[in-house]
Amino acid sequence: MKKIMISIVMGSDSDLPVMKEAADTLKEFGISYEVIISSAHRTPAETEKFAKGALERGVKVIIAGAGLAAHLAGSIAANFPLPVIGIPLKGGALNGIDSLYSTVQMPPGIPVATVAINGAKNAALLAVQILAVDNKDLQKKLINYKNTLKESVIKKSKKLQELGLEKYLEGMKK
Amino acid sequence: MKKIMISIVMGSDSDLPVMKEAADTLKEFGISYEVIISSAHRTPAETEKFAKGALERGVKVIIAGAGLAAHLAGSIAANFPLPVIGIPLKGGALNGIDSLYSTVQMPPGIPVATVAINGAKNAALLAVQILAVDNKDLQKKLINYKNTLKESVIKKSKKLQELGLEKYLEGMKK
Amino acid sequence: MKKIMISIVMGSDSDLPVMKEAADTLKEFGISYEVIISSAHRTPAETEKFAKGALERGVKVIIAGAGLAAHLAGSIAANFPLPVIGIPLKGGALNGIDSLYSTVQMPPGIPVATVAINGAKNAALLAVQILAVDNKDLQKKLINYKNTLKESVIKKSKKLQELGLEKYLEGMKK
Amino acid sequence: MKKIMISIVMGSDSDLPVMKEAADTLKEFGISYEVIISSAHRTPAETEKFAKGALERGVKVIIAGAGLAAHLAGSIAANFPLPVIGIPLKGGALNGIDSLYSTVQMPPGIPVATVAINGAKNAALLAVQILAVDNKDLQKKLINYKNTLKESVIKKSKKLQELGLEKYLEGMKK
Amino acid sequence: MKKIMISIVMGSDSDLPVMKEAADTLKEFGISYEVIISSAHRTPAETEKFAKGALERGVKVIIAGAGLAAHLAGSIAANFPLPVIGIPLKGGALNGIDSLYSTVQMPPGIPVATVAINGAKNAALLAVQILAVDNKDLQKKLINYKNTLKESVIKKSKKLQELGLEKYLEGMKK
Amino acid sequence: MKKIMISIVMGSDSDLPVMKEAADTLKEFGISYEVIISSAHRTPAETEKFAKGALERGVKVIIAGAGLAAHLAGSIAANFPLPVIGIPLKGGALNGIDSLYSTVQMPPGIPVATVAINGAKNAALLAVQILAVDNKDLQKKLINYKNTLKESVIKKSKKLQELGLEKYLEGMKK
Amino acid sequence: MKKIMISIVMGSDSDLPVMKEAADTLKEFGISYEVIISSAHRTPAETEKFAKGALERGVKVIIAGAGLAAHLAGSIAANFPLPVIGIPLKGGALNGIDSLYSTVQMPPGIPVATVAINGAKNAALLAVQILAVDNKDLQKKLINYKNTLKESVIKKSKKLQELGLEKYLEGMKK
Amino acid sequence: MKKIMISIVMGSDSDLPVMKEAADTLKEFGISYEVIISSAHRTPAETEKFAKGALERGVKVIIAGAGLAAHLAGSIAANFPLPVIGIPLKGGALNGIDSLYSTVQMPPGIPVATVAINGAKNAALLAVQILAVDNKDLQKKLINYKNTLKESVIKKSKKLQELGLEKYLEGMKK
Repeated sequence: MKKIMISIVMGSDSDLPVMKEAADTLKEFGISYEVIISSAHRTPAETEKFAKGALERGVKVIIAGAGLAAHLAGSIAANFPLPVIGIPLKGGALNGIDSLYSTVQMPPGIPVATVAINGAKNAALLAVQILAVDNKDLQKKLINYKNTLKESVIKKSKKLQELGLEKYLEGMKK
Repeated sequence: MKKIMISIVMGSDSDLPVMKEAADTLKEFGISYEVIISSAHRTPAETEKFAKGALERGVKVIIAGAGLAAHLAGSIAANFPLPVIGIPLKGGALNGIDSLYSTVQMPPGIPVATVAINGAKNAALLAVQILAVDNKDLQKKLINYKNTLKESVIKKSKKLQELGLEKYLEGMKK
Repeated sequence: MKKIMISIVMGSDSDLPVMKEAADTLKEFGISYEVIISSAHRTPAETEKFAKGALERGVKVIIAGAGLAAHLAGSIAANFPLPVIGIPLKGGALNGIDSLYSTVQMPPGIPVATVAINGAKNAALLAVQILAVDNKDLQKKLINYKNTLKESVIKKSKKLQELGLEKYLEGMKK
Repeated sequence: MKKIMISIVMGSDSDLPVMKEAADTLKEFGISYEVIISSAHRTPAETEKFAKGALERGVKVIIAGAGLAAHLAGSIAANFPLPVIGIPLKGGALNGIDSLYSTVQMPPGIPVATVAINGAKNAALLAVQILAVDNKDLQKKLINYKNTLKESVIKKSKKLQELGLEKYLEGMKK
Repeated sequence: MKKIMISIVMGSDSDLPVMKEAADTLKEFGISYEVIISSAHRTPAETEKFAKGALERGVKVIIAGAGLAAHLAGSIAANFPLPVIGIPLKGGALNGIDSLYSTVQMPPGIPVATVAINGAKNAALLAVQILAVDNKDLQKKLINYKNTLKESVIKKSKKLQELGLEKYLEGMKK
Repeated sequence: MKKIMISIVMGSDSDLPVMKEAADTLKEFGISYEVIISSAHRTPAETEKFAKGALERGVKVIIAGAGLAAHLAGSIAANFPLPVIGIPLKGGALNGIDSLYSTVQMPPGIPVATVAINGAKNAALLAVQILAVDNKDLQKKLINYKNTLKESVIKKSKKLQELGLEKYLEGMKK
Repeated sequence: MKKIMISIVMGSDSDLPVMKEAADTLKEFGISYEVIISSAHRTPAETEKFAKGALERGVKVIIAGAGLAAHLAGSIAANFPLPVIGIPLKGGALNGIDSLYSTVQMPPGIPVATVAINGAKNAALLAVQILAVDNKDLQKKLINYKNTLKESVIKKSKKLQELGLEKYLEGMKK
Repeated sequence: MKKIMISIVMGSDSDLPVMKEAADTLKEFGISYEVIISSAHRTPAETEKFAKGALERGVKVIIAGAGLAAHLAGSIAANFPLPVIGIPLKGGALNGIDSLYSTVQMPPGIPVATVAINGAKNAALLAVQILAVDNKDLQKKLINYKNTLKESVIKKSKKLQELGLEKYLEGMKK
């Protein structure tokens, strides 16, 4: 059985559609992961137990997504010595400004590596970058990934030159 | 020894000058209290233990003040069944907007009774109001307190009528 | 006839769909309540009369919800000596930031216990917590309520482990 | 005895230094006024009584200044049929954004004519404009006032052309 | 022919659906008005000419609505000595925060009486209040208007007591 | 072959529907332009190469549109000595406030001429104004353009006077 | 006498200390300029006259700085066919957010090239870039200017490597 | 010579007093680092060269701090395959909200691990956590570090119990 490298945690199953992007991206890089629902407020003891036990279970990075007064990433960071990546989730009246501030404005001593609101894909890429620090294979994969992004932009720009704006837009609508 | 009714908790001793107002107000009403430094991020286990044990120790209401990504009140509310009052503290680049959102935007199931940014006096008054729900004596004290506030405003307005604006302002500067 | 313990007040009947959650939650805990429409601006005398008379009628906590320049909770707090819980309601161009600031930023002397924007369920839970301060039965119910929340999260996380992400998401769509 | 035309009301005597500008401006236009301290939250009954009785006392316009969750102007507007001008006052952690929203975002039916944060001078000018609607003398004074503003700007610009930037700035520092 | 008392001005005909509320409210009070499209940026000379000529034409109050960098009310106020009421209109990415700040934050000397974002009804009511300053008939109408608002709220609250929450909500959906 | 005067650059083809307005406006003025997709983050080397080579290719002004942490305009401005116009694009949870701040708050030394969020038409007009600085023909076209805007507003206002509010609105719905 | 190329306009002489940076930067590039005080609200006719006559006087670009509800740049842009650069000035309770929105959020048809809050130096650089569009000499000067910026950063970084962090910081304090 | 593990980069030497905290924290953990001044806008080629060459030089993590439209971290992330940590720096009129949004709201594909505004210490701790992923020694040091934080809070709380609030505060002032 493959060892879990990354834990993806979220406060509620309603966060799954956004958080799935993190899982899909890790899969793309061949990184083993687990997906867990655990709430800083509704299951504080379970969240703490999970965070405290993760190191021993071999988890290297934890990705935590939460909305509103998003305490999940911070709660885990308080109990886990390795990197915790926080995804502020959009939701509620404030559209994610509340979760952004609740995730990123951590006090000195307990960092949370925060990505954009709903930035689940980037959270996963950051986790891969962290694992790649001592892994040349992953470094190559990341460089390839960037190249693919680059080629896609270049290809689109070329196509735009060839087709012209009107036709390109028509093509997008199809 | 008098039983502790209210716990005042803060994340750092740098919060003491603001939080002292809560203590002073409780003292004014003759309510027994304790003042504790405990951090959601730096002493998560101690904070949890404190919150879980408070009911048995006879604590009726917990007042928690924190700044930045202010998780303290929420963390305590996750582990204490009675009212938790949150004071978002001003501090850092965002002037307390971050702590306001982190304190008030709690998810369904775990309320935090939030007061104004740096509103330590009101946090204490709210705690007294909660204790007064089944306590006629405290109700009377609260009504007296409001009367004192009222009299003070009325007296100032009268003085202003008598002295006129210029002289009143001069008197304020002294 | 059962004595009313909690008053739920709102400024307009358009607020009912959100405020109903507060009523439903109180019902769940077996707490007697009344639901009233009264506006700080359109029926100021009625609002004042209601707030001044509530204590004598046995009301222990008032829950007030309002949007925009939300003065309802503050107006009631000025005339009622026991806890007033304010729910800032979403609505209008500013999405509830206006009502949040109008509700929470009360001046020293007159607290309003503020919950999240549209946080009607938490307002009711906070009211129950306040009543529970001297009521062991309600304390047990609150602890049970938290356990139910906890069990629900744990059950969902287990189901997610068993089904895997894809199947779980499919199940949610049904 | 000259009849009072304008009431200037504020929630606290700490607002006097800003509100004085309103009084000074009214004096400049020869408008009779009174200055009152009355709080929506600490003296709600007095505020209501004042607002309800003002029409009969001959008051034409009320100027109300308050900070934080600034309910004063709205409370008065609920009880006074003629124009109420609201001045959101700067103060507290949110620098007056809270009082701006609390003052301007009034619900349909009860307008408050809101001016800039700390805009006491403009509040007074607006009151004069209102009194000028049926008063040719005041209209002339207002046109003169604008001319004076205009002349002052033109004079400064001319002086700047003559002296040049450096010398003008030196002159300002003196 | 009845003399025009109030001018309602807006920057674009796309503002008409919101601004119509102002016209409807003035009609309700029997106040004569005109509705004009004039832009501070696209027809600056026409806007200036309109503002400068309005006093002579007998206009007593100008209501101006604009969105985005909303300069219309301010431009008119610079050229009209009587009250200008500004309505910040919602629209664009910032939802009206831009037009609120552009309308309300006027510099000393040139006030704009600002109402809520999209607050066209209140702008008209404020105009009526201004006209009512020396008009007992309008004062009575305004007091009646407030009574109607009041009765409507009281009636709804009574109906809610009679029907109960569930049935009332069902009735609202019909 | 006509020489390219203006480059329109955007970070992603999903920005095309908004950016097309810039192209359409330039076409209206008979200005030659190119439309390019190039990302500050996904194709940094290509973006740099484009920016560095643009002067030699005869490009006079670059219009750059991007959303979120919008670095495109700034990156180009760092490598191009002539005017760069930035269009902050709406998109993501923050509705374009993030891209506005990321575009406009450039440090001293490297300006970006920023227009409104999604203001692609104005970006093109600004580019035309820049080209018109030494081009009397374009100056005339710009003056005509403004006249057309003006005439359109005046015509609408006249039509509104003739039809009245109700009929005009009906006509708009058709 | 050298022809004026750039007009620097501000609403009040209190803006001079910030706006001086624009003048100094233009002087550095040998561009002739004038500095004018003219207010959109206090001298609207003068501002309009200035804007309408500027083209004929040979002015190529106008730089306008204003605070609060900053209408100056927009008012000028409505009456001048060539580029208008807006500098939102910091001041008042909102720290320049109000002037930023009032300056940048211009409606379609009338662009204002907006720079950072208090960004007077960048406003001047942008003006130079505009003049440089058809002026190879200015292009060279701009490229030199950028090189100087670059060399300064590189030199500081080298010095930091040589001295180390502590000594460098000590040197800064002197 | 010890190999550099972490690069600390900032846009200007005025950022050194804040960024020094990152260096000091790395030193505390015995991690080798370099401190570089390089600007995304003033030295774009140098910044790119630095970012592209860092991997080969053995750099594992880059910490980048910048203010205003903070593009530095994003520019580096576009050219470096391993983790980039962004510190939004406070400065300018917007107090760091601009740099926070410019740093955290990165588009999909190019993450920046963002910490709090001015959070230089946490940036360094996050870098250490990343290096600790495959380094048991660093893991122990991090656990010790957390214990020290914990002990410090516990000690202060005890002292507070012993001294009481008044005496503790007196002690703080000394």
